[in-house]
Order: sequence, then C-alpha cells, then structure tokens
Amino acid sequence: MTEPLPPPPLLRPLIAQLRLPQQGLNWELLDQALIHASASADRNNERLEFFGDSVLRLAAAEFLIEQYPNATVGDLTLVRSHLVSDQTLTQIAENIGVEKFLQTSRAAAGDAAARPKRLADAMEAILAVLYLSQGDLKLVRPWLDPHLRTRAQQLVDNPEVNNPKTALQELTQREHKTLPDYRTVEISQTHGDPERFQAEVWLGDRCLGSGIGASRKAAEQAAALQGYQLLHSSP
Amino acid sequence: MTEPLPPPPLLRPLIAQLRLPQQGLNWELLDQALIHASASADRNNERLEFFGDSVLRLAAAEFLIEQYPNATVGDLTLVRSHLVSDQTLTQIAENIGVEKFLQTSRAAAGDAAARPKRLADAMEAILAVLYLSQGDLKLVRPWLDPHLRTRAQQLVDNPEVNNPKTALQELTQREHKTLPDYRTVEISQTHGDPERFQAEVWLGDRCLGSGIGASRKAAEQAAALQGYQLLHSSP
Repeated sequence: MTEPLPPPPLLRPLIAQLRLPQQGLNWELLDQALIHASASADRNNERLEFFGDSVLRLAAAEFLIEQYPNATVGDLTLVRSHLVSDQTLTQIAENIGVEKFLQTSRAAAGDAAARPKRLADAMEAILAVLYLSQGDLKLVRPWLDPHLRTRAQQLVDNPEVNNPKTALQELTQREHKTLPDYRTVEISQTHGDPERFQAEVWLGDRCLGSGIGASRKAAEQAAALQGYQLLHSSP
Repeated sequence: MTEPLPPPPLLRPLIAQLRLPQQGLNWELLDQALIHASASADRNNERLEFFGDSVLRLAAAEFLIEQYPNATVGDLTLVRSHLVSDQTLTQIAENIGVEKFLQTSRAAAGDAAARPKRLADAMEAILAVLYLSQGDLKLVRPWLDPHLRTRAQQLVDNPEVNNPKTALQELTQREHKTLPDYRTVEISQTHGDPERFQAEVWLGDRCLGSGIGASRKAAEQAAALQGYQLLHSSP
C-alpha cells in the first residue's frame, strides 16, 4: 500500500480552516465538493451532494444508536430528522466557515435566499468526499461527531424544542398573533407504521414544514419542529 | 485477529435460504433482526430497522452513482426513492422468503394489512446486521446489489413507470373512471432546491402518495410513482 498523499498547496488553507484530515482524502473530489453548479455545469458538487445526503443520514443514525442506547425509536427518528436538516447543516457550515472556499457564479452568490441551501449542499458534498476517500465512515465520524453531539444535546436540553408543537404555538402567538394550522392525513392504514401519518403545518397561506410519524401527534411534532426552526432562524 | 465464527445450528436454515454470508456476521444481531416487536417488547428489531433504513439508502445511492455515471441527479433521486420504498423491500422479502423466519405474535401475524410493513422492516433490520457486523457496506452490497439491479432496470425499462403521472392517470381512468388530483405547495423559495415543492396525489378522499422535488412536475412525478405502486400492488 502506498503512502497517502499530503494535500496539494492550493487546498491547504481549506483543510486547515475546516480541520479536515491532513492525509487520506481524495483531493480531487474535495476540490469538486466546493464547486457550486452555477460555477461549472460539467464539474460541480451535485452528485456528491446526492450521495452525501445518505452518508449524513447513516452517520447520524450510527451516532444516535451509540449515544442513546435507551431512547425510543420515535425519539431517535425525531432527533435524526433535526440532525440531517438543511438548517443544521447550514449552521455547521457557518460555524466552520465553508463559504469563502465555495466557488459560485457571481449571479448565484448574489442570491441571498439560496445561500443556506448552497452551504448545506456543500456540507453534504464534503461528507461524501470523506466517505468515498476510504469507503466507510472512518473519516466521517471523527469530523462530524462533535457537531452532532452539540446539536443533539441542544435538542435534549431545550424543553421548547422537546415539544415543538407547544414551542411553535408560543412563537406564532407572540410574533404573528395567530395559531399554526395542521393538515394531517393518514397515508397508511398499518398500525405502528412509522410513516402512517403525514402532517403539514401552515401559518396563513404559508406552509412552514411537514413531517411523518406513527401517530397523528408524532407527525405533527415533526412538522412543528421544521416550522419552529424555520421561523426561529428567519423571523 | 480471530477466525470469524460459523453460524450456530439454529440459524443455518435462515442463512441458507436468504443466501447470507456463511461467516463474519454477528449471529446474535441476526437473530434479533428476525424478532418483531409483537413477539418481544425487550429484544426486537425496532432499533435495527431504524438504523437499516439509513444503510439501505446509502447502499442504494452508492449503487446508483456507480451504475449510472451519466444520469441526472433528478433521475437518481427518483430511482433511489423507488429502491428504498417499502414496496420494493416487501417484494424482495417475498422473493427470498423471509417471512417463515420472522418471529411474530399470533395476533400480529393475523393482521394481514400490517404484513408488508413487517416484511420491509425485517429486511431493513437484516441490512443493519450486515452493516454492523463489519462496520461498512462490504457485506451489504454483494447481497443487496442483485436485487437493486433488477428493480432499477425495471424502472429504466418500463416506459409506464418512467412517466408515473401518465401511468397513474391511465390506471385510475381504467380502474376507477376518474383522474387523480394533485395538491402541490411550494415549501421553499430557493430556485434549484431539490425540496422546493411538495405534492400529494389524491383519488377522491384517499391520499395515494406524496413526493418532493425541485420543480412542481418533479414533486408530482414522485407522488405519482408512490400512488402508482400503491394501486398497482393492491388494486
């Protein structure tokens, strides 16, 4: 087996800033992970982002079953949906300063509404590179775990977010003088099916979020969590 | 490193029937993967199923980026949602004959409506065991790939399912003398966001499926595919 190559000079500031491993990464893929589709139609991070979404979900699931051996599957599912959300990814991207390394066309860079999604996609693409460089989670978990730990703990500690329906109701009453409205349908007749109910939460004519769950309440809590995060991050 | 243990005698018929690896599996976990929650509240496959859902999604994504290097991310997403669906898992479980090894309470076994979900969950739990035994996809992919290949090819070959909206419309016109109804909402204002639109497809007062996508059409196609599979499997 040959010695893993050190990073090429151009990537060193990125590696240092993001605290990525100094060796063993596929440097060409890492470079590609930081190219937004607006900067190149041919070589960009779209496919890496597609793959990285699955890497993140698996890493979060593995982290949760290890850290919370006594949690119910319903709680694990709720926390995982928080950990893999674009909001969480965008927060991590902000913390570690991904944006200045992201190649974006000038027009796309000026689109402020698209910025959170751009950052979340870049995070997923980086996770794909960490996975694909070794073919397993060995480089992913040490890099990602501290971020997951912080955010999982926030969820566990925070009584508001522990009950998203109540939290969202208080927030919309305070800020919008109105209550959120749930539209919940039974999409499967199977008792115990974790995808039995699907809920959307609306504020006036705006859909704030959606969720699924084994019970009407679980689906609405998941939808409320999305809605709460949306309003809380951009009031 | 110690030699991997051969399977205990009680599990041998299961290993042979499901064509699982003869060595290197965690036999205790494999046994647990075949215990439905109705048979034991303490030791059952619920947490394995939670984890296996992520394993399946990653294995399907890896399979697709390898097999279809030129497919668009939109097409990859549509095919992945088909491959990881409960319908697909239930079909595979039927083909390989998982049911006779599944421990279920008598009452739960009599619940025919819950049967597809029970089989899909057992499949996900088995995938979790294949992953957890080695800590990577090395045992998962050789076992799962032939099934994914068959089902991905069906989707690529089948002009009906290539255009699920048309297929579903023809099916409901033929069988129900009515057209499906789409309820589609914009859940994000970000152009290019793969989760920008959410669609539900309804037949009268029955929600047949839901989907998300970067465009109105993509979300409705994903919802239509779920609806088509639902009606096609249980007319």
